[in-house]
Order: sequence, then C-alpha cells, then structure tokens
Amino acid sequence: MSEETDPDEPRILSANAAFYAALTALDLPAMEAAWAHEPRAVCVHPGREALHGWEDVRTSWERIFAATGWMHVEPTDVRVVAVGELAVVTCSENITTRAEGGVGVASTRATNVFAIRAGAWRMLLHHASPVPVNVAPPGAGAFQ
Amino acid sequence: MSEETDPDEPRILSANAAFYAALTALDLPAMEAAWAHEPRAVCVHPGREALHGWEDVRTSWERIFAATGWMHVEPTDVRVVAVGELAVVTCSENITTRAEGGVGVASTRATNVFAIRAGAWRMLLHHASPVPVNVAPPGAGAFQ
Repeated sequence: MSEETDPDEPRILSANAAFYAALTALDLPAMEAAWAHEPRAVCVHPGREALHGWEDVRTSWERIFAATGWMHVEPTDVRVVAVGELAVVTCSENITTRAEGGVGVASTRATNVFAIRAGAWRMLLHHASPVPVNVAPPGAGAFQ
Repeated sequence: MSEETDPDEPRILSANAAFYAALTALDLPAMEAAWAHEPRAVCVHPGREALHGWEDVRTSWERIFAATGWMHVEPTDVRVVAVGELAVVTCSENITTRAEGGVGVASTRATNVFAIRAGAWRMLLHHASPVPVNVAPPGAGAFQ
C-alpha cells in the first residue's frame, strides 16, 4: 500500500515484527510491550468476536500462550500506510502450531493498527481472519 | 475506542454509514464513491485472501452485487479512532441476504480504514471476518 513511503516506516515495520516475535516466542511480557495499554485497544482473533480494552486483550494472549506448546508465525506481504501518528499494517500470517492435538498449519490475514505512544509505535488493533490454506504440492519445495 | 473524540468524527461515521448504505442497496456507483481509487486500497472479504488495488476491489463488489438478490447490513458497535487524515472504524456487521439458495444470516466483524482524499473521507481498507452468529431464542423479541 506504500506508493508514498513514510519516513517512519522502518520503525513501524519494527513494531509489527516485534508483535510477531512475541507471538512466536509465546512471550507475554514482549506481547505486553508491543501493545498500547488502553480501553480503545481492539483484538479480533480468527473467527472470533472483537475484544475491547487492553485487559481483555492481554487475557486472551495469556490463554492462547498457555494452550500452545509451540508456534511459529511468519508474516509475509507486509504493507504499511501511515499518516502522522497512526499507521495501518496489513500482512499475511503463515502459522505453524503444536498443541495437544498435534501440529497444525493455518493461514490468516491481518490488519494491524499502530499509534505513537510515549514516542514509540504501539499496537492499538489486531484483526486476524482465516483464509484458505495453500498447501504446496509434493515436490514443490527445494528438497525434491 | 474513542475516549478522545475527534472533531471530524461525524464525517467519518457518515463515510462509514455511506459504505453500508451502498452495500445494502447493492449500489455499485455508491460503492465506487465510498472508496479511494488507489493501488493501496485493500479489501478482505470474510474468509478470503486480501485484494489489493482499487480495480480488483471494485470487481469483487460488482460480482458480489450480481450474485446477491437482496441484502441488508446493519452495522452496530461502531467505534472510531482518528488521527489527522487517517481514521480506523471498527464495527459488527449484522447481515441478512437473499440469493438463489434462500435467505441467510451472518455476523461479521469489520475494520474499516478511511483517509482524506480531495477533502472527503474515502475507504482505504475494509477487512471483514466471520464471527459466530448469535441466534435469539424464541420469545426473545418484542413480539411474544
């Protein structure tokens, strides 16, 4: 989405990457650091209703992390629109998880909104929704 | 999401309402008027991958309108965060449709991003995702 590149784009991308690093590491303190702790914080997990307010958002991540044995989330197709102190990042989330039921892959589409808080970009909204998974055919990888 | 009310909030809400009016009326010219016609336009229909660029977004609405006999979309829980010329609106979409297969109800959660273009708020991103439908129990309405 970035014909006009915002001079702050590297910092916005870094904030987006920090969110996915926290997710992959199942690291609640890092997740807390990624977010704006405000009543207006919004989080929509795939296929779920919206959670409003940092307390409910934080609790949801705590539960997800507790229920997940291992997770890797690789963001791709990351695009930024920023105007002043508000930024919208869109990306695909390529997710591999290991929980009690085994290993699963999922593909989601995310809209992430960041705002400047005390000089740093903090997440104000995370909206992820399921998309059809593209399964690579046998032999499509580098090792054939 | 609006502890701090933006002075432009009524115009942003009006732009959001115009989008849902276009959707309910299956009115392509009105839908065209609601959007920013730009390569950075993004649209995620429920359960689908993202469409990038106004041309693809427009085509998707054209197809949806052609395939839909009748639709009513009622936005509720509408919240706004705006900073300068960028605004994020979140809401629930309560959808009733009539198509070839009969009448259906759906509930989706939307994140809508608007930007000022030529003095008017235009949609830059629409991200809708399915949520569980709450079906009112018999006798829960006004007419019992």
